[in-house]
Amino acid sequence: MKIAIDAMGGDHAPEAIVKGAVEAVSQMEHLHITLVGDEQQIKPHMADANRIDIIHTDEMVTADDEPVRAVRRKKNSSLVLTAKEVKENRADACISAGNTGALMSAGLFVVGRIQGIDRPALSPTLPTTDGNGFLLLDVGANVDAKAHNLVQYAIMGSIYTEKVRKVTNPTVGLLNIGTEEGKGNDLTKKAYSHLKEAPVNFIGNVEARDILSGAADVVVTDGFSGNIALKTIEGTAMTMFSMLKETFMASMKTKIAAGMVKGDLKGLQSKLDYSEYGGAGLFGLASPVIKAHGSSNTRAIYNAIQQAVHMVENDVTGTIKSTVQSINWDKGEE
Amino acid sequence: MKIAIDAMGGDHAPEAIVKGAVEAVSQMEHLHITLVGDEQQIKPHMADANRIDIIHTDEMVTADDEPVRAVRRKKNSSLVLTAKEVKENRADACISAGNTGALMSAGLFVVGRIQGIDRPALSPTLPTTDGNGFLLLDVGANVDAKAHNLVQYAIMGSIYTEKVRKVTNPTVGLLNIGTEEGKGNDLTKKAYSHLKEAPVNFIGNVEARDILSGAADVVVTDGFSGNIALKTIEGTAMTMFSMLKETFMASMKTKIAAGMVKGDLKGLQSKLDYSEYGGAGLFGLASPVIKAHGSSNTRAIYNAIQQAVHMVENDVTGTIKSTVQSINWDKGEE
Repeated sequence: MKIAIDAMGGDHAPEAIVKGAVEAVSQMEHLHITLVGDEQQIKPHMADANRIDIIHTDEMVTADDEPVRAVRRKKNSSLVLTAKEVKENRADACISAGNTGALMSAGLFVVGRIQGIDRPALSPTLPTTDGNGFLLLDVGANVDAKAHNLVQYAIMGSIYTEKVRKVTNPTVGLLNIGTEEGKGNDLTKKAYSHLKEAPVNFIGNVEARDILSGAADVVVTDGFSGNIALKTIEGTAMTMFSMLKETFMASMKTKIAAGMVKGDLKGLQSKLDYSEYGGAGLFGLASPVIKAHGSSNTRAIYNAIQQAVHMVENDVTGTIKSTVQSINWDKGEE
Repeated sequence: MKIAIDAMGGDHAPEAIVKGAVEAVSQMEHLHITLVGDEQQIKPHMADANRIDIIHTDEMVTADDEPVRAVRRKKNSSLVLTAKEVKENRADACISAGNTGALMSAGLFVVGRIQGIDRPALSPTLPTTDGNGFLLLDVGANVDAKAHNLVQYAIMGSIYTEKVRKVTNPTVGLLNIGTEEGKGNDLTKKAYSHLKEAPVNFIGNVEARDILSGAADVVVTDGFSGNIALKTIEGTAMTMFSMLKETFMASMKTKIAAGMVKGDLKGLQSKLDYSEYGGAGLFGLASPVIKAHGSSNTRAIYNAIQQAVHMVENDVTGTIKSTVQSINWDKGEE
């Protein structure tokens, strides 16, 4: 199996990317990795180059690049060349920690969609209090979703959760502003009735308040609301950690107490660290494409690689394809 | 000035409501309050009945009642009678900690809208790390908003923030999934261009990640996304506090540390307690209507009453009315 990785994307590139790749090949014996990026910058971080190839390029997509334009114009960028490895069947999956929008564009325009899937979905796994985590999709690939898009997200999310996360018959919830049927906006009301008929374990509406407590294994929503939910979780957690830190630094007494619970609080922080679950999959593309978090360290990259490997081994893409094509989609009314 | 209050709404009704009212009249000398509800249950909590009247009724709207039906059928409920006091000019403002949907319906159908306002907005003030707080609207009164609704929210929110919260020239941000102009879904793209022309201090898009750090004094969004953001903040904070508690109860050492910082952590929790800022105003109605949080204690009710008093004293409703009517609304394209 071969995974292509954009070595130049993310805050800690290329070091964290390269080290994550080295670690992954040392742990997984049938894995080959192609790193795409500046050879001069990549090489110093790979003492062991066993089963790792480099495709050299100087061009890069930056965080400030406009996504669609970047993919069209920067044809030799590490991000586009990474996607091309998959498109041209030299790799089974690809990963980037770079510009999210550009990776989504490269996914659409270079890798291409599964036939029958109208819109791919960006799908991170987020932590829950019970440690099991849940899949949230879409968090921004498609900001003006239709009801049948949400049904496709439910199917793709269920397949991933069952095959990769090994949850039997995963529950699917619709993110909504109330739990009763009939609640919500036009989109969620329509999606609710379609989801009841879909081949997934639909448990109804779930509220944003309850998703971190594990209300459902798969939570589907339009990309706008999903992005708001995701960023609100991040912002609230960040705010609380910084206020907690302030509280602990307030006096000598609180500083002593902080010293006593330091290790335990680090444990709490890592429980909330969603890079433990890998990156966000871009589901619905012809091959697995994974967006690793921009701040990914070596461990997060390693986890994203492992996730890509599991997606390939368990043929998530093929299963999505055959499931979606077995359904008679009624998209007429939207 | 007279404020009508639904004595039977909320988790701690009627005790917390009555005690909050007693406290408010004792602190504000020109204030009269009308409590609406079961006299037998109200009276035991008011030793001092100075400037407090009771309108007796046995009927109540419960949390499970379907909002519109409840307002139509339960004409003698404490919630509907409270709204009627305002409608028939026997009170200047009203408050309920009961069924949010029913209060919104009573606001629309009993109190009525300001002429020119198409949709009222439910508008809580949320805490920020700097302690100043920000106004988020709408959080659920109108789940399928149009761009011009968001512009009206911006105007109403600015007037409230300037007059009641005493912020000069408050900044207005549009909740969006990126900060650059051109980001977002159809709605936010349209709203952005209208907001640039509106008579408010529009500072552009704000991301959900940054709102708790005080990205803007007023954050406007459609009711669906606003509700998702609000509930996500609540859920994340709740989850983190419960995980923190678990961390502190893990061992003898952590328990000792917990004892040392107990008071400081309580301070942190109260910093995040948005009942300190009063209830959520239902802006756009002919008189101030305030939704106090369902879990309101005496202090939260007191704060909501103070908020209603400030809204009346500073003629927030009149100012919204004259401002909205001075604008030539172009709603054609939506």
